[in-house]
Amino acid sequence: MKMMADRAFGEFDFIESVCEMFRSMPNNGFEGIGDDCAVLPIGNGEALVFTSDMLNEEIHFLTDKSSAFQIGYKSLMVNISDVAAMGAKPVATMLSLALPKERFGDWSAEFMRGYKKASKKYGVKLIGGDTVGSKSGVCISVTAIGRAPMANIKRRSAAKVGDVIVVTGRLGASAAGLRDVLAGKLSTRNAKIHLAPEAQVCEGEWLGKQDAVHAMADISDGISSDLQHILDRSKKGAIISMDGVPVARGASFQDAICGGEDYQLLFTVDRREAESLMQSFEQQFGKPLYKIGKVVRPNYDCYYIGWEDSNGRVVYALDGGGGYNHFGDND
Amino acid sequence: MKMMADRAFGEFDFIESVCEMFRSMPNNGFEGIGDDCAVLPIGNGEALVFTSDMLNEEIHFLTDKSSAFQIGYKSLMVNISDVAAMGAKPVATMLSLALPKERFGDWSAEFMRGYKKASKKYGVKLIGGDTVGSKSGVCISVTAIGRAPMANIKRRSAAKVGDVIVVTGRLGASAAGLRDVLAGKLSTRNAKIHLAPEAQVCEGEWLGKQDAVHAMADISDGISSDLQHILDRSKKGAIISMDGVPVARGASFQDAICGGEDYQLLFTVDRREAESLMQSFEQQFGKPLYKIGKVVRPNYDCYYIGWEDSNGRVVYALDGGGGYNHFGDND
Repeated sequence: MKMMADRAFGEFDFIESVCEMFRSMPNNGFEGIGDDCAVLPIGNGEALVFTSDMLNEEIHFLTDKSSAFQIGYKSLMVNISDVAAMGAKPVATMLSLALPKERFGDWSAEFMRGYKKASKKYGVKLIGGDTVGSKSGVCISVTAIGRAPMANIKRRSAAKVGDVIVVTGRLGASAAGLRDVLAGKLSTRNAKIHLAPEAQVCEGEWLGKQDAVHAMADISDGISSDLQHILDRSKKGAIISMDGVPVARGASFQDAICGGEDYQLLFTVDRREAESLMQSFEQQFGKPLYKIGKVVRPNYDCYYIGWEDSNGRVVYALDGGGGYNHFGDND
Repeated sequence: MKMMADRAFGEFDFIESVCEMFRSMPNNGFEGIGDDCAVLPIGNGEALVFTSDMLNEEIHFLTDKSSAFQIGYKSLMVNISDVAAMGAKPVATMLSLALPKERFGDWSAEFMRGYKKASKKYGVKLIGGDTVGSKSGVCISVTAIGRAPMANIKRRSAAKVGDVIVVTGRLGASAAGLRDVLAGKLSTRNAKIHLAPEAQVCEGEWLGKQDAVHAMADISDGISSDLQHILDRSKKGAIISMDGVPVARGASFQDAICGGEDYQLLFTVDRREAESLMQSFEQQFGKPLYKIGKVVRPNYDCYYIGWEDSNGRVVYALDGGGGYNHFGDND
């Protein structure tokens, strides 16, 4: 169960307690608690995956900084990114919208244009939802359904010692873009990546088919946090080469590891097959993968990330980084 | 696709346009557009059904009139009511919550206690969701997944001329209860029905198994509206015997036909089998079904509801009723 939250108040305690409340109930065939999606095997070697995200005005977007089109586009993309992270293909979504009176009309039409553009790009059908009034701001809830052969499903818990850790693109653009947006520069390359991100849908489905790929997640909170989820679930450690982290143009190293909302994919791959997989991927998608580190044995029960500098020195907490804070943080 | 909305602004136009936007896209195997749930056949004669609802503070509930427990209970019930209306068994939900800071803690814990009580009652597992902050009110989104043999799935479009129209319980209690709530009387029988309604989960699954049951819907907006949806989809008319409508204690006839939120089931049944089905139901559940009318041929392309009084006189629009307004209203 993925229940992300803002870090400000006591939400993590709440999420922990919710998971605990339902732990003893029968699963009705569902698996994947702790992954980006819940998984339902449906027979004949097939599975469906399910994920929900909520985006709320003033928390996840500002209606005076994002166009309605961009908010619609992003609402779909952030959701199907979780499906891609499972190695599955998104097939349908349900969309629920709470809209203040003044948002019906031009704003809602533009929102739907963006939502549809993103949906159509990947053949994702809108199959249901709800529209309600709101006496306060806009609230958006999207549920995505994905489909894949059961054998393709990638779980966070599958990382193995020796695996190479790989990301599908340069990181930090969204965090740098957020700075641009807040400074009123809405048209920079990074601002656009922040406002209308692109999920790695085809890449995720392709990686799902590769047996050499073990654990996978999407980068919604920054690799220091998202990799930690993989390590916690896999009960492993990791060494990340700081020089190996691909930093997007205009972004800092800090943006790249802690910024989040990049919606690239992060995965671990059998080290004997890493090179050939990276070549095949580049042939398939015309862009490179980036090796950033390796999976190692845990240090006692501590599923740490060690950050290795160019002199081979490893530190286990980066100044201001999210890595340390997430030590032992099970989601 | 069920996209309900408040009636105040231009939402119906919006919903129409959303449905139209996605009509040309491939269905990816999903059916059931226009029903309470979308339907996905998954092979071996099995199907999954999907529905989403959103509840928003000040629109669907008042936090000073409902306890957090009741809001949690109701959030689950209104959603699985749509699953029951398809003849399916609810198996899982995803819950997304936008909560202002002051709602984390006691309020959110009580909300989850109510949500879990309703979930556990019918064995519905919570499999995912999202928790986000809110700078305004509470917003709740629930997606339910149901499962049934494909042959059990009941569609709004399946009503046949001559069918008897039946409801599973007395109507109007919720509307009468809302009046009590607004008057500050939160503990009356009807107020409790309004604040923490009960979905007809076992009844829906049982009715799904009866071949004699043709079309079915849940009563979320009042029979004048919900029956109209069945008639529009089935291209039929109906005659309702006003004396036959079972009015809940403390409720008016107007409450019973237009009030909504009763979450009883409304269905049409083959007239030759109606009596034996009604007997079997009463044996099974220890409570009666209520015959309220019959399905008739449409009058040209007008899928009207005729209201028959005790003198056999039929009127086609009731003063202040929702029936007339919903003439030709396709959802």
